[in-house]
Amino acid sequence: MSEVTTTDLYEVTMAMSYLREGMRAPATFSLFVRDLPPDRGFLVAAGLEPSLDYLSRFRVGPHDVEEFADALHRPAADLEPLLGLGFDGQVRAVPEGRLVFAGEPLLEVTAPLPQAQLVETYLLTQLCHQTAVASKAARCVIAAAGRPLVDFSLRRTHGPQAGFQAARLGALVGFAGTSNVAAATSLGIPASGTMAHSYIEAFPGEEEAFRGFARTHPGPVTFLVDTYDTEGGVAIAARVLKELGRGPGCAIRLDSGDLGALARRGRDILDAAGLTDVRIIASGCLDEYAVDELVRAGAPIDVYAVGTRVGVAADAPYLDAAYKLVEYDGRPVMKLSSAKVTAPAPKQVFRRSGRADVIGVWNEDPPPGAEPLLRTVMRGGSRTGRPDSLSDARARFDADVAALPASARRIHGPEPLRPVTSRRLAAMTAVVRRRIEEEIRT
Amino acid sequence: MSEVTTTDLYEVTMAMSYLREGMRAPATFSLFVRDLPPDRGFLVAAGLEPSLDYLSRFRVGPHDVEEFADALHRPAADLEPLLGLGFDGQVRAVPEGRLVFAGEPLLEVTAPLPQAQLVETYLLTQLCHQTAVASKAARCVIAAAGRPLVDFSLRRTHGPQAGFQAARLGALVGFAGTSNVAAATSLGIPASGTMAHSYIEAFPGEEEAFRGFARTHPGPVTFLVDTYDTEGGVAIAARVLKELGRGPGCAIRLDSGDLGALARRGRDILDAAGLTDVRIIASGCLDEYAVDELVRAGAPIDVYAVGTRVGVAADAPYLDAAYKLVEYDGRPVMKLSSAKVTAPAPKQVFRRSGRADVIGVWNEDPPPGAEPLLRTVMRGGSRTGRPDSLSDARARFDADVAALPASARRIHGPEPLRPVTSRRLAAMTAVVRRRIEEEIRT
Repeated sequence: MSEVTTTDLYEVTMAMSYLREGMRAPATFSLFVRDLPPDRGFLVAAGLEPSLDYLSRFRVGPHDVEEFADALHRPAADLEPLLGLGFDGQVRAVPEGRLVFAGEPLLEVTAPLPQAQLVETYLLTQLCHQTAVASKAARCVIAAAGRPLVDFSLRRTHGPQAGFQAARLGALVGFAGTSNVAAATSLGIPASGTMAHSYIEAFPGEEEAFRGFARTHPGPVTFLVDTYDTEGGVAIAARVLKELGRGPGCAIRLDSGDLGALARRGRDILDAAGLTDVRIIASGCLDEYAVDELVRAGAPIDVYAVGTRVGVAADAPYLDAAYKLVEYDGRPVMKLSSAKVTAPAPKQVFRRSGRADVIGVWNEDPPPGAEPLLRTVMRGGSRTGRPDSLSDARARFDADVAALPASARRIHGPEPLRPVTSRRLAAMTAVVRRRIEEEIRT
Repeated sequence: MSEVTTTDLYEVTMAMSYLREGMRAPATFSLFVRDLPPDRGFLVAAGLEPSLDYLSRFRVGPHDVEEFADALHRPAADLEPLLGLGFDGQVRAVPEGRLVFAGEPLLEVTAPLPQAQLVETYLLTQLCHQTAVASKAARCVIAAAGRPLVDFSLRRTHGPQAGFQAARLGALVGFAGTSNVAAATSLGIPASGTMAHSYIEAFPGEEEAFRGFARTHPGPVTFLVDTYDTEGGVAIAARVLKELGRGPGCAIRLDSGDLGALARRGRDILDAAGLTDVRIIASGCLDEYAVDELVRAGAPIDVYAVGTRVGVAADAPYLDAAYKLVEYDGRPVMKLSSAKVTAPAPKQVFRRSGRADVIGVWNEDPPPGAEPLLRTVMRGGSRTGRPDSLSDARARFDADVAALPASARRIHGPEPLRPVTSRRLAAMTAVVRRRIEEEIRT
């Protein structure tokens, strides 16, 4: 299964036709999210770095041509014009970690039409999904209000690749670690995790299990205390930690029940045993709503492990994103049918301090003091700079969140900022619409 | 990124400890879904074949050991006991395509404890996600009531791997094709797709676009008719098809607006042009609810293309699944805390015609006329038979759906069947619970 054939068939049928018709002029496609899902005050741009990796590698090889021919029931010779086609276009994009809003391009591709078309599906599957998950994870970071978060989502994500991305996106918005070993080691982020209920159950009792674990792991340990009776489990954990002289860096984990109440009771038991530096980790179907509630209630939870609901962006598992042709061969284009009207022409997003963003034409003058969000990240099919680091992306995320109005940061019922359209883009949209309507009438 | 290290770190810390403590006796883990999500009358067992592939390949290599050591900040020598560890256990499982209900094991693994533990995360990420998506796709098949469905989900799934699985799972429950070229060619299922709005927009007008497409594609073509004005688009498509003498196998596609009304109007225009054999394909954020509504309203839509909402199982993107230790070294075990109590011991599910399933102990006598669902699919780490085919799975799905009560098949507010517990399993659960409660007290 190659990356090149991991595409919708229609990209291939269209590219074949463009080549046959001699339509190789530059085309600009704009990738944007039409509307934000409910309970999203912002989105976190994500998925760009993996997308640029893909574009850098993109080249239609002989085996890809055979697969295309197979899918179309056509002789391979009919697909030969695609052989060797790579990506040598330009990409302007919002760097990972920045906050974006409805209608703002995350990325614009300008390349010969067949190339720009062929990469559509793969770019969408990277950017939509990763932006959805990063945005969910970001809300957890806001809810945790400075307390560390850890990604536990691998077992519930949509396959191993999605699990890897969830770990990466958690780190991108500031998670302290992930349970995913492969992601942790390859991305250089802390790996986290100690024991499951099965571990406790395989031993005759909790005390034997905790002691057995400590024998294998001489460093800091985390004991899971809710297998049978949580308060009893905490008491046993406290006794074992005390007897073994463990404390700093150690923790207990609560995975079920009333986490707030159990954390309070657990904290009392640990403190009474003098284990004031043993931390409490909470897990179990947590998301930003649950974390927010626990934090507001003052639960003495030191670390939140979020998994399932965050890794699949449970309440908004997809984004209403589009990859729209906005210009071909110098001519702005747009779609008119139904409610899905899109503004023509390549665009730029201008961010203004304390005010709504302006979506304008890519080369118009910025409003005074405004910062353009889209940067040229690829030219002639090559990156314009070094790949971005996770810490760069995280710094951008931190700065953007700090500047976000409280109404958009809210966990419940946030109000997203609504970008405005520049005069120039509005005028151009009106002209193109009129031109197309006249063409349809005639 | 290896499959072996695509795991939660705690599987590794536990396995290390099991090995150090000499705990290599056989353990049985049971993988099941605790509760069905709202609006699910059943689940479709899926993900077994990829899971068995994984288990067949599973072996901890030198590089894996290094990654584990890296993640744990331990010298590689501490992880050496894991080197070379493979999977040589037994797997009993429900074959793909069968319908299952809450609490019924999808799969049970019996293997030396460290092995059975290490494979947990990967098995969950395969089986949970694939069962969730297959179940959503199955509801679309029921809603379509015999009309063909096509998978268009790749651009919205959680990455390319998830997109591949969505295509496979669609085929497993009877979809007629997929837009995903890689999935289509590698699985031998029909590939589907012709043109996007961008194709139309790149030409001066719709007629030029349709003619251009037909020049490249001499076989059956599908024209997308809703770029500017849908009725006008249908009229142009009809004229071009008629002039070119194309008809059988050709189609028009509606992707926006009131699909039912537009299909009716489109059908009239096509029929008036004598193109009674040109089909109508509908797409655009469809799911089982939308398909059901269109079918019930008698919309003249011949093929439904479902994407986004089905590929991510939008209303139930994860399942509340668990991989629970149920027996270690011949001793049944269970967890007691909170509401998550699980019955101990390896299990079997007995299906009875027209009645609720019985969940019993794996080796108890079946109720009269009942069929055991779990089959031994792997023994000594090797498959007991040849890999299952998609058509075998589909045949099982078709038979199970045909036997399902209408109340569980319903699209809105279905009532899932509730399995009952056998007397023997209930008695064993009571005994084990009493034993553990006594142990906790002492």
